[in-house]
Amino acid sequence: MSQFINDTQTLVTDAIDGILETSGGALTRLDGYPHIKVVCRADWDKSRVALISGGGSGHEPAHAGFVGAGMLTAAVCGEVFASPSVDAVLAGILAVTGDAGCLLIVKNYTGDRLNYGLAAERARAFGLRVEMVVVDDDIALPHLPQPRGVAGTLFVHKIAGALAEDGADLDTVTQAAERTIASMASIGMSLDTCTVPGSRKEDRIAAGKAELGLGIHGEAGVQQVDFVDARNAMDMVLDKLSDRISEGGHVAILNNLGGTTPLEMAVLAHELAQSDKARNISHIVGPAPLMTSLDMHGFSVSVLPVDSANLSLLAAQVGVSAWPGLSAVAPVQTRPLPDGLSPIQPIASANDKTRAVISEACEILLGAQEALNALDAKSGDGDTGSTLATAARALQGALDRMPLADHTQLFRALSTELSQTMGGSSGVILAIFFGATGDACANGKSTPKALLAGLERIGQVGGASLGDRTMIDALEPALRALPDGIAAAAAAARSGADATAAMGTAKAGRASYVPEDNLIGHNDPGAEAVARLFEGLAKA
Amino acid sequence: MSQFINDTQTLVTDAIDGILETSGGALTRLDGYPHIKVVCRADWDKSRVALISGGGSGHEPAHAGFVGAGMLTAAVCGEVFASPSVDAVLAGILAVTGDAGCLLIVKNYTGDRLNYGLAAERARAFGLRVEMVVVDDDIALPHLPQPRGVAGTLFVHKIAGALAEDGADLDTVTQAAERTIASMASIGMSLDTCTVPGSRKEDRIAAGKAELGLGIHGEAGVQQVDFVDARNAMDMVLDKLSDRISEGGHVAILNNLGGTTPLEMAVLAHELAQSDKARNISHIVGPAPLMTSLDMHGFSVSVLPVDSANLSLLAAQVGVSAWPGLSAVAPVQTRPLPDGLSPIQPIASANDKTRAVISEACEILLGAQEALNALDAKSGDGDTGSTLATAARALQGALDRMPLADHTQLFRALSTELSQTMGGSSGVILAIFFGATGDACANGKSTPKALLAGLERIGQVGGASLGDRTMIDALEPALRALPDGIAAAAAAARSGADATAAMGTAKAGRASYVPEDNLIGHNDPGAEAVARLFEGLAKA
Repeated sequence: MSQFINDTQTLVTDAIDGILETSGGALTRLDGYPHIKVVCRADWDKSRVALISGGGSGHEPAHAGFVGAGMLTAAVCGEVFASPSVDAVLAGILAVTGDAGCLLIVKNYTGDRLNYGLAAERARAFGLRVEMVVVDDDIALPHLPQPRGVAGTLFVHKIAGALAEDGADLDTVTQAAERTIASMASIGMSLDTCTVPGSRKEDRIAAGKAELGLGIHGEAGVQQVDFVDARNAMDMVLDKLSDRISEGGHVAILNNLGGTTPLEMAVLAHELAQSDKARNISHIVGPAPLMTSLDMHGFSVSVLPVDSANLSLLAAQVGVSAWPGLSAVAPVQTRPLPDGLSPIQPIASANDKTRAVISEACEILLGAQEALNALDAKSGDGDTGSTLATAARALQGALDRMPLADHTQLFRALSTELSQTMGGSSGVILAIFFGATGDACANGKSTPKALLAGLERIGQVGGASLGDRTMIDALEPALRALPDGIAAAAAAARSGADATAAMGTAKAGRASYVPEDNLIGHNDPGAEAVARLFEGLAKA
Repeated sequence: MSQFINDTQTLVTDAIDGILETSGGALTRLDGYPHIKVVCRADWDKSRVALISGGGSGHEPAHAGFVGAGMLTAAVCGEVFASPSVDAVLAGILAVTGDAGCLLIVKNYTGDRLNYGLAAERARAFGLRVEMVVVDDDIALPHLPQPRGVAGTLFVHKIAGALAEDGADLDTVTQAAERTIASMASIGMSLDTCTVPGSRKEDRIAAGKAELGLGIHGEAGVQQVDFVDARNAMDMVLDKLSDRISEGGHVAILNNLGGTTPLEMAVLAHELAQSDKARNISHIVGPAPLMTSLDMHGFSVSVLPVDSANLSLLAAQVGVSAWPGLSAVAPVQTRPLPDGLSPIQPIASANDKTRAVISEACEILLGAQEALNALDAKSGDGDTGSTLATAARALQGALDRMPLADHTQLFRALSTELSQTMGGSSGVILAIFFGATGDACANGKSTPKALLAGLERIGQVGGASLGDRTMIDALEPALRALPDGIAAAAAAARSGADATAAMGTAKAGRASYVPEDNLIGHNDPGAEAVARLFEGLAKA
């Protein structure tokens, strides 16, 4: 799989320079490429306790993205998933540590512990005050004496960072970091492995499965579980954390492991907010990518009991854009719909024949859903069938309150119904179509003529006409043939729809962005829907 | 492919509720689910011009993520990639528009134009002042009469948002939005298509190819190009924009289309900052996900000429965390490496016996390389033999400058040498071991006792002790037996190393993440190396 990199050898140095060049001068680095990759606050004056973190790269925005006022003073970056060397860490310590000393915040991986540990000893030999805390928040393997450090690290960065920014001394900062580490817990879940640059992606997690309890370096999770849905996934994660969520308020980090869309993360946030197992989670950081594992399609939850002290430290302003801030978790607040949306309700009336036609039309569209989606996928976003099916379901549910015995009111009611329930351009176009048809009926036109008036109106509003590869190519010939009977209309619609397959350039709608090769040979899905509708009605 | 959702039917409403529940009360919504999905600022008092945007979902953080002080007043959200209905837009307008009126910011897609346009007409019928601008920044198809609206939309949100927040009237806000739209341009590139929830991912872009000039709804790009690397990719994109980057400063949006890692985005930022074609890009927003296309592995660049007015509007503070802020693009600033990284060079001295022992030890490790790699492949990454061989070769080359006649200095020099030449955790462990051994010699301990002091130190730092399936299992018995002679030490090391084969759970190091079945029956490679070393020295 291609990636937007130049060379795995220069990947991390290129990326760090990109971060610096777009930091507006807020960040600088030591002149030690390629072995020494240390990102520092440009405005640092050594007047307070320095905070240094880092580790392997591939966890962005951690760690360089958290260098700034109120968080890290420096980040020591290794290659992807590899600890930086002792010399690199030592260079970072020597560069930013003043009389107030420094705290190293290290994730509990052997390489990081050792390299940071040795660097700390060497720095102490220079007379510097250096403390080190080891983050071990992962609870995936409860009996492991050396749990991994994962996204909970951000709690430590933020709490220690706010204290240090405020001028607290090294002992105070270190003790706060240690207290935070002792009381927090994290666990992650993923639907897929990550793609390490330069390596082939491991195909380890089968479709329909997820891994629960994973680290942030692509290593296998503790268990493979069946993936059901977002609710079940969040429930499994919260279940693992339940021992660590006692009474009283807690703050959670909802971390995107890299490849999860914001839409999915928001669904997971909703499930967390709704879950009874999270009833003691009063505050949240995220959802956001904070401690990622390259492009891993997963998430993690970290929890920390809150008190008034750490809550204000977590809420303090910072000078980095990657920190999403702290929010209270609160139920959804709604406002009533404004007046003016509810059109006058038509008076329901019965007409068995009309009812049967509409019912049949809805069934035809529901039956065509998959075929129309597949056709739309060739030229659009593959939702024509779904959009029409949604409308059909809504119409079926609305039949009892429709003015079925009055064509004028019925067409207007169809317009209202479709404009309320059907998304996409087709919803509005059909609403305009039926609205104008109803208006024409009110002016005394026959139904076929009124339908042609509706057609004329959508041509004006939508800017499309015959030959533009739209549903008009089937609808117009069908309506013109309608006075000769439904069979004639169906044949005309089919012929018009099939003619769209030869139209290489769409002049309106989404297909107009698609190259000719993707269009030729496939009917326009809107025109095809019209043809199927008339054909189905002719058969019934 | 699984996704963290519950049901495509409730995906967008679940996600919006997740955003609201984690907004700390900053956002509210209209009570119109499922058809009307309108997210509003909770603190809105209608005292100023309201800004309303939106469109299909799947572009997060656009649009709900940009609702807040200084940006949008409300976002009207459709289903994934589908425009919201007229009623939904109308509800949004009616809910937030006061006497100052409102501006609709609409991306140029047929559905959005139709639904927002019809809603604007209906709202005007209520006597509201409603203006609408249509964003058409995509330059992928230069001759298309209706270019798409893509990530440049964020320029409009931000500039109009800052003016409206500041109390500008509707005409001023609308004209600024129109000027912005008229002068900006965007283009995107992707390595893969996006995964529409509930649909199968289209396999359209072959390995080694990229699409240039794509929209944000999964439609095919205007052209498929060969993908070379990040530099070439950014060059192609900037080349397309070059007509639109005139003299004078410009601001760029570097937008993540969803599935690109922050590491890749930072490399792309570096390429943009370095490119001669971007020499007039003085400011940047991002890299960040702003207008995404679900999980699309791509990026886009939008450019806008800057003047003092729009620069300060783009830089103004906002109340939304998804906006990454505006930064000047600036060359990398470096700081010199600190003093103290080059350790004091030891004064070389000769000792034939010591030299022979070290030479022999190096030969033994070189000879064991393949066997140790094979053993490590069972439980780790298969490099123990190579790592030790690298160190052995380096030591052989350094023998002439070693203080062979002074044990204290020799152990310290071994520590320095190994920490500089041997990667991975084993290099550091041995560096700590020899450093602490040297310190113990300096304090007057005999060599065997000093070596035991070194062992104790690595136990502290590494967190491992006897029985944890590490090299300590061979080294500790060997060193304890060493006062009885090298043969006794070798026998003890062998016995200790062989005992590790029965240890099913490693308690430290990478093997601790490996299942028991992979460990049982194989000696720990570190312990095996120690045993071979002592056995070899005993024979020599």
